[in-house]
Amino acid sequence: MKWTDGFIAVDWGTTNRRAYLIDGAGKRVDEFEDARGVLTIEAGGFTGAVSEIRDRLADKPMLLAGMIGSNRGWKEAPYVPCPAGLDDLAAKLVWAGEREAIVPGVSYVGQGRADVMRGEEVQLLGAVAAGTVHPEGFVCHPGTHNKWASLRHGKIQVFGTVMTGELFSLLKEHSVLADLLQGPVEANDAFRRGVRRALEREMLPADLFGVRAEVLLGQANKDDAPSFTSGLLIGTDVRIGLTWPASAQITVMGRPELTRLYAVAIAEAGREAIELDGEQSFIVGIAEIAKRMS
Amino acid sequence: MKWTDGFIAVDWGTTNRRAYLIDGAGKRVDEFEDARGVLTIEAGGFTGAVSEIRDRLADKPMLLAGMIGSNRGWKEAPYVPCPAGLDDLAAKLVWAGEREAIVPGVSYVGQGRADVMRGEEVQLLGAVAAGTVHPEGFVCHPGTHNKWASLRHGKIQVFGTVMTGELFSLLKEHSVLADLLQGPVEANDAFRRGVRRALEREMLPADLFGVRAEVLLGQANKDDAPSFTSGLLIGTDVRIGLTWPASAQITVMGRPELTRLYAVAIAEAGREAIELDGEQSFIVGIAEIAKRMS
Repeated sequence: MKWTDGFIAVDWGTTNRRAYLIDGAGKRVDEFEDARGVLTIEAGGFTGAVSEIRDRLADKPMLLAGMIGSNRGWKEAPYVPCPAGLDDLAAKLVWAGEREAIVPGVSYVGQGRADVMRGEEVQLLGAVAAGTVHPEGFVCHPGTHNKWASLRHGKIQVFGTVMTGELFSLLKEHSVLADLLQGPVEANDAFRRGVRRALEREMLPADLFGVRAEVLLGQANKDDAPSFTSGLLIGTDVRIGLTWPASAQITVMGRPELTRLYAVAIAEAGREAIELDGEQSFIVGIAEIAKRMS
Repeated sequence: MKWTDGFIAVDWGTTNRRAYLIDGAGKRVDEFEDARGVLTIEAGGFTGAVSEIRDRLADKPMLLAGMIGSNRGWKEAPYVPCPAGLDDLAAKLVWAGEREAIVPGVSYVGQGRADVMRGEEVQLLGAVAAGTVHPEGFVCHPGTHNKWASLRHGKIQVFGTVMTGELFSLLKEHSVLADLLQGPVEANDAFRRGVRRALEREMLPADLFGVRAEVLLGQANKDDAPSFTSGLLIGTDVRIGLTWPASAQITVMGRPELTRLYAVAIAEAGREAIELDGEQSFIVGIAEIAKRMS
C-alpha cells in the first residue's frame, strides 16, 4: 500500500467523527464531519461506516485515531505507555481491515495514579512535529475530559485528565443547577470570579451548591451562573493541572471557544498560555505517522 | 386551633414525603411515606395533596417542613437567617391554609459564602431539644445535599452544604463512569482508600476520571469502583466540612446507611463521630414548634 499517494485520516470520537483526505505532501484536500461517533455504530457496522467515508472522500488507505480503538470501537488498539512519541505510535498500529490501521492511545501509570488518552496524542505530537509546541513543553487540551501533558524530548512523558467538560454537562443537563446553567458561558467577570474562588479554596462540591444558594438569597445574579460555574470548574482544573510537572510555557490546544476560557483561567493563576487550534496539529501528526509507514 | 389535641407533621421533600400523626404528648401514633414529593404535584394541587394526608391519618391541623416551603412548593416560607433556633422558626411560620402552617428554612450569609437549608433544621434543632446533640455541637447531615452545621447556645450558628449525594447520582446515572457504579456502596477497604485519597490530595475531578483509567489499565478492581468513588466524594466532603468551625464532638444524623459511611470517613480523618437516626429528631423538633403555638 502506498501511503505516499495520499490517504484518509479520521479523528473518530464517541459522539462524532471528522474525516480528512490528505495528499502525498501531507496537505488536507477534502474533509467532512458528521455525528456517526463510535457509540452510534452497531456491532459489525464499522466496515460499512468506513465505506461511507471512502464514498464521500476517495478510495484510499485509512488511518483512524480516537475512540475507534477503544473497547467500544472497531478493534481495540492497546495503549502505548509513556513516554510515547510518534515513532512509538507508528510501531503499534493495529490493523482493523486490510487497508485500515488504528492509532493506539497512550497510558500513564505512576505517582499513585493511572490515566489514559485516545485521540489527543495525535494532536499533541503533531504540534511538536509542526514546531508549534516545544519538545519540552506543557500542553492543556480541553474537552469533555481535559488533558494536561508534559513533553520531554518531544514525547508525552506524563499526563493527567480532569473531567471538567463532562461535569459541566452533567450539572447543566441533570442537576439542581440545571435551570441556572442554560445561558451562554463567557470569559467575563463572573467567569474570572469563579476561577479565583476555585484557586483560593478547594471546595468545589460546596461552591457548586453555593451557586444556587447565592442566587436564592440575592447574593449573585442569575444570569452570571453559567459563566461563574464554568469558572469554578475550569479554575479547579487549572489548580490541579498546575500541580503536575510543568515547563514555564503552557500551550492550550483545542477548540477556540474552550482554549479562550482556559487561557483566561491560567492567566488568573498568574501564568501565561499560548492558544492553538488543535485541528491542524491533528493533520500534521497523522501525516507524520503515515510517513513512517511508507 | 388546639395543637395540644394532636396534629399532623409532614417532612415534605422534592421527591417524597413522610407524614406523622403526633398526639398531644408529642408521640407519633401513626405515619406513612409516599412518592408524592413537591415536584410531582401540579400547580393548584396542594390542597388536594393535603386532604389525602388527612384521609389517611386524621382530621388534624398540620405543620409542614421541607421543600414544601420553597418556590417550587405550596407557598414560599422565606428563610430565617442564622443564628436560628426553634423559637425563631416558630415565630416565622407561614400559613398556607387555615389549618396548615409551613416551617421556614434557614439561610446563612458570611465568610464570602451563602447557603440555604429546608427540612434539616427541624431535625437538627429537634436533636438539641431531645438532648441527643449538644447545644454547642457540630452536626453532619448527609443526603442529596449534605449539611455541616455548627450549633451555638442551641441555635444553628453557621452551616455549609456539599452536593455529594447529587454528584454521586449524576455520575451513576449519566456519566462515563455509569457502568462502573451500578454495584453496592459499602464502608469497606475500597471506600477507605477513596476517602484517604481525597483527604491527601485535593483533585476530585481528576481522581474521578482515574476510577475508569485504573480499571482499564488493570490497576484497580472493577467491583471496587462504587465504594471507591463514594469514598472519593465523601472524603472530599469531610475534608471540606472539617475546615468549617467545629466543636470536638461530631454527630452524623440521617439515614443509617449514610451515617455509617460518613462516620467511617470522619474516622479516617482522625476524628470521632456519633451516629444518630434523624427521624426521631424530626418528630421532637416539630412537636417543639407545635408546643410554641399552643
